[in-house]
Amino acid sequence: MKQKIAVLGPGSWGTALAQVLSENGHEVTLWGKDADQINEINTQHTNHRYLPDLVLPKEIQATLSLAEAVQGVDAILFVVPTKAIRSVAKELVPLIEKAPYIIHASKGLEQGSHKRISEVLAEEIPADKRREIIVLSGPSHAEEVAVHDITTITAASQVLESAKYVQDLFMNDYFRIYTNDDVVGVETGAALKNIIALGAGAIAGLGFGDNAKAAIMTRGLAEISRLGVAMGANPLTFIGLSGVGDLIVTCTSVHSRNWRAGNLLGQGKKLDEVLANMGMIVEGVSTTKAAVELAHQLQVEMPITETIYRVLYENQDIKEAAKEIMLRDGKVENEFK
Amino acid sequence: MKQKIAVLGPGSWGTALAQVLSENGHEVTLWGKDADQINEINTQHTNHRYLPDLVLPKEIQATLSLAEAVQGVDAILFVVPTKAIRSVAKELVPLIEKAPYIIHASKGLEQGSHKRISEVLAEEIPADKRREIIVLSGPSHAEEVAVHDITTITAASQVLESAKYVQDLFMNDYFRIYTNDDVVGVETGAALKNIIALGAGAIAGLGFGDNAKAAIMTRGLAEISRLGVAMGANPLTFIGLSGVGDLIVTCTSVHSRNWRAGNLLGQGKKLDEVLANMGMIVEGVSTTKAAVELAHQLQVEMPITETIYRVLYENQDIKEAAKEIMLRDGKVENEFK
Repeated sequence: MKQKIAVLGPGSWGTALAQVLSENGHEVTLWGKDADQINEINTQHTNHRYLPDLVLPKEIQATLSLAEAVQGVDAILFVVPTKAIRSVAKELVPLIEKAPYIIHASKGLEQGSHKRISEVLAEEIPADKRREIIVLSGPSHAEEVAVHDITTITAASQVLESAKYVQDLFMNDYFRIYTNDDVVGVETGAALKNIIALGAGAIAGLGFGDNAKAAIMTRGLAEISRLGVAMGANPLTFIGLSGVGDLIVTCTSVHSRNWRAGNLLGQGKKLDEVLANMGMIVEGVSTTKAAVELAHQLQVEMPITETIYRVLYENQDIKEAAKEIMLRDGKVENEFK
Repeated sequence: MKQKIAVLGPGSWGTALAQVLSENGHEVTLWGKDADQINEINTQHTNHRYLPDLVLPKEIQATLSLAEAVQGVDAILFVVPTKAIRSVAKELVPLIEKAPYIIHASKGLEQGSHKRISEVLAEEIPADKRREIIVLSGPSHAEEVAVHDITTITAASQVLESAKYVQDLFMNDYFRIYTNDDVVGVETGAALKNIIALGAGAIAGLGFGDNAKAAIMTRGLAEISRLGVAMGANPLTFIGLSGVGDLIVTCTSVHSRNWRAGNLLGQGKKLDEVLANMGMIVEGVSTTKAAVELAHQLQVEMPITETIYRVLYENQDIKEAAKEIMLRDGKVENEFK
């Protein structure tokens, strides 16, 4: 059934998801804050800064007014940066008419509180003003979705029926959705994988090969799973699209910002130099700090993350750090059994 | 403590493992059937056909005599091809003096019987003639181990103490061993991952991007885990080094034979053409057949493997096959919960 949907955040991922929804026959309004960009989407049906080669369906409307965007919608999709989630949700509450589904496709933990995005949304949007909260996450370069390349992602909600609603919204012959009821696992996997991407980039920058790449990805996955489980996740979620799947895309593609930042660190560059060089936010850097704080609080052992933390925040030499990790005692592989 | 070890099979992996053991101070004898190769190892300390640039420790002895190789050893390491496991084990039994540990680092299922390698070894070598059987598996190009690049692998045995014995044998500052007690999971992961490598190669050959690569690897991992669990494995083993780890190395390295074969199929070449072109055994081709037979027998759904089977054995057009997979109904992500 045709649904009316507001997509908040016209970056590359928000735009690609808006296109999928529009192609599936839904009525889509994109909300953003840049007047030139909104005007470009409405008049030229392009979004050249984020997806240069894409021509959008003419049916997609864009607006600067949040009130207009969410008027009478069945679902609201958040694709704004993690740090804007709480303020946009606050602004949204008085504008909501009928209780819509709340979907988000952002990746991260709130700075300071270390809360997951669905927790922030649940705190700000009262339960009587909305239906279920659903998270959408998985291995997906927006540029590939935009050109209809095959993509698979996970829709997770505590109530599986609501995840199925989102599955129906997005599913088509190039975009395939799997449902999951482990919101904590999907959100923590999505956020924490950027730490491992930094580490995998660093290992490559140091000149190590495929064995070491597989090692840091696998043992990194083991420790982000461990933290996720301490936060309430099911360990098996990390073997899925938002865990292994997203990790593969992030750690084996040179397009990943976090991988590239790690790679420069591995080549011996200093953190401030790397960040200046990137000119964009590298989420993994603040996520590493959040993960170390959470690991101490929840008493979870995260040797790879702790090592990356020391390199990022305590100026440890990266070659020394890599050697230290290798000289640790032998371990049992799987502690969840 | 210094151990006396026979390494059966002087291919690239057997030679690299012999080097690790010798560098760790153990007494190592390599056994093989090619007189020129054995002579080369003993006189020139090289094995140019398998590891062209390597100079082996002079302490490594090589022999054509299985009796000489296993005389008074504490452990025997099998690194022969899967199809030779049973015959070498049979030949070995009358030659064994004191009951040694039996370690193997081969990947595959026995043709016809679909038995795992440790099952074949247990059938052929009576329990009073040996100590525990341990499997060694993980993401490891032999070429990288030979040059002391960082590598991590799993040693699995039903008795964790025996896995620890193998951990102690191999562990050093570039070769890191994790123990595991799930022999079934480690062996099925190692064997079945070659099917997914064929699929990942095919997806790349068809021109799909990183999203599709991550999709087939993740959903492929889900279905080999499903079959492994039906065979008695713990699903969490597949998130470890012999599962995800080995899958990453095999599916993201162009050095993988199975990936390259799949890649050629994706480009539209026919199977016989591909196999002739490779000039080597492509294990994934026979493993796909074994997996489909096992899946039917154990009533496990394996849509990706079944699709690869139809392309390999029933001449299905590979583009049609890729499309069919995408048009299946939406699924719940994780069925082990």
